[in-house]
Amino acid sequence: MQDRINRQVRLKCRPMGIPEAEHFEIVEVPVPNLDNGQILVRNIYLSVEPAMRGWVSAAANYLEAVPLGAVMRAFAVGRIKESRHPEFRVGEFVTGMFGWQDYAAVDAKEIQRKITDTDLPISTSLGILGLNGLTAYFGLLEVGQPKGGETVVVSTAAGAVGSCVGQIAKIKGCRTVGIAGGPQKVRLCLDEFRYDAAIDYKAGDLDSALAAACPDGVDIYFDNTAGAISDAVLKQLRVSARVVICGTASIASWEPIPRGPRVERHLLVKRARMQGFLILDYAPRYSEALQALSQWVRTGLMRYREDILEGIEQAPGSIAGLYRGENLGKRLIRIVPERS
Amino acid sequence: MQDRINRQVRLKCRPMGIPEAEHFEIVEVPVPNLDNGQILVRNIYLSVEPAMRGWVSAAANYLEAVPLGAVMRAFAVGRIKESRHPEFRVGEFVTGMFGWQDYAAVDAKEIQRKITDTDLPISTSLGILGLNGLTAYFGLLEVGQPKGGETVVVSTAAGAVGSCVGQIAKIKGCRTVGIAGGPQKVRLCLDEFRYDAAIDYKAGDLDSALAAACPDGVDIYFDNTAGAISDAVLKQLRVSARVVICGTASIASWEPIPRGPRVERHLLVKRARMQGFLILDYAPRYSEALQALSQWVRTGLMRYREDILEGIEQAPGSIAGLYRGENLGKRLIRIVPERS
Repeated sequence: MQDRINRQVRLKCRPMGIPEAEHFEIVEVPVPNLDNGQILVRNIYLSVEPAMRGWVSAAANYLEAVPLGAVMRAFAVGRIKESRHPEFRVGEFVTGMFGWQDYAAVDAKEIQRKITDTDLPISTSLGILGLNGLTAYFGLLEVGQPKGGETVVVSTAAGAVGSCVGQIAKIKGCRTVGIAGGPQKVRLCLDEFRYDAAIDYKAGDLDSALAAACPDGVDIYFDNTAGAISDAVLKQLRVSARVVICGTASIASWEPIPRGPRVERHLLVKRARMQGFLILDYAPRYSEALQALSQWVRTGLMRYREDILEGIEQAPGSIAGLYRGENLGKRLIRIVPERS
Repeated sequence: MQDRINRQVRLKCRPMGIPEAEHFEIVEVPVPNLDNGQILVRNIYLSVEPAMRGWVSAAANYLEAVPLGAVMRAFAVGRIKESRHPEFRVGEFVTGMFGWQDYAAVDAKEIQRKITDTDLPISTSLGILGLNGLTAYFGLLEVGQPKGGETVVVSTAAGAVGSCVGQIAKIKGCRTVGIAGGPQKVRLCLDEFRYDAAIDYKAGDLDSALAAACPDGVDIYFDNTAGAISDAVLKQLRVSARVVICGTASIASWEPIPRGPRVERHLLVKRARMQGFLILDYAPRYSEALQALSQWVRTGLMRYREDILEGIEQAPGSIAGLYRGENLGKRLIRIVPERS
């Protein structure tokens, strides 16, 4: 494989806030040789996540910062091209943290899973059947603990995680209210993801819209944004409400920590709970969740959208686009045809 | 009893923020006559609580606001002087929401409990063996869920609730760190309530003091203050930390909601939880807690301090004094001798 080229997207400089195209560079290097026990994966889809902002930040985080000059950390799905490990065979599809590059030479422990449900598109392994679906599943069910009849409000409701949260809540018998930016996403919430109500936070007077959509108040708020949207939702909490802190998409920078209305009084008067979680903590239970999620997808109870960019050249600018809200659905980069 | 005088402390006007003496007036009315089924209680100790600020506020709360012109809502302990109810006898000591007044004519359901543990001072029924002790017990054990070896930080650590939290945490095998205002309270934390470390937040550089006192970070923060103290503690949370929101003593007014550093990132990165609670929700389990608390008091595992003001004339200004931090221990007003 030495004669083939491996294109890599590397972190060139550390952004303050949201990573833009200029913070990365694309370099070409030879495809790596394998050591004993290693597997060579030809990436097909690269994932783009809001969490990448944290991964390239110097601030404290749940993972080490991506070093300057290193290949950008990313989930990917690809096909095995060479194997020097007895449990992995050429032609198998696998997912893992393979990075923003054409080829990855990895140890067996770096492979998250083999894709065995080949009736579903392999791209789903990075979205609805990947960390997005898992995040929605465990965040809502384990941290939020929904009960039938409760009102569940979701921010970035049409997004990769949010749309899945709304649909799981619906499956569990909750009333679902989505908050999204712009009429197109609101339509997607109602028509595709079957929220009971959807609110365009850009249309103004979020307080009144929320009060109208949640006449009995909010039992669960699945928070993907923080910021002004969350400030509005917190005012509508019911007694014993749960706020699931999943992401902070609306906050451009946490250095310094931005200020907002204090939450203590809401939590006290409403005997409410705010809780952050990290999906990696649920790794031992992924297969249980994937089984449920894939069954919901097959039976049509769960729908998903993908936003697929073509070509690795799209990678450097793709994170900033997420934060501008330009994608409809899970953002992926396809770098070769699906069955190549 | 009609010829005797009942002095009442009534709410004269609604404060913005902390209630001061000028917001109350003392009036003299006849001692009430009893209806069938009622009990006449001669109050001995009146309680003074930080929560009273909320009770007189027009803002949303867990109880209705005290109406203008009404007797100030307050816990009290007193002795039965007359009874037209078969289950209550003259001479028994009882607690309840009897208000800031000499005499209360109450129905049986308004009596919280009869004091049967007569080996302990009856004043304890309003503090360590009243809502303060119960708040510490359920807030720490049920909401905080301490495990042996964990680090528990308490704000208003020398106060009626805080001192009890610190001691229960110690009994449960935790490392305890108290935050209090001024050297006298810090000494009380160390000498009387046996905290492992105590910090004077008025001495400056709370961040460094906390880092030194909690080298492994904070597992549980029992928050009685909100504000700058909490902002500092939140920066030191460990993974899976629990923040128990019990009170907001440092916030002078919640109208409008004051601003502070956003908490979402801390909660997310540390997979931490902030949760408010209301002690009244635990009413069915009070006797379990009182049994444990009184046993700890008897065996010397649990110490308490009281700050007793003499005479009902002290009541109007007593809440503001709490917020100025002038009391050492549970603040009470004694309006007649204990065994009268």
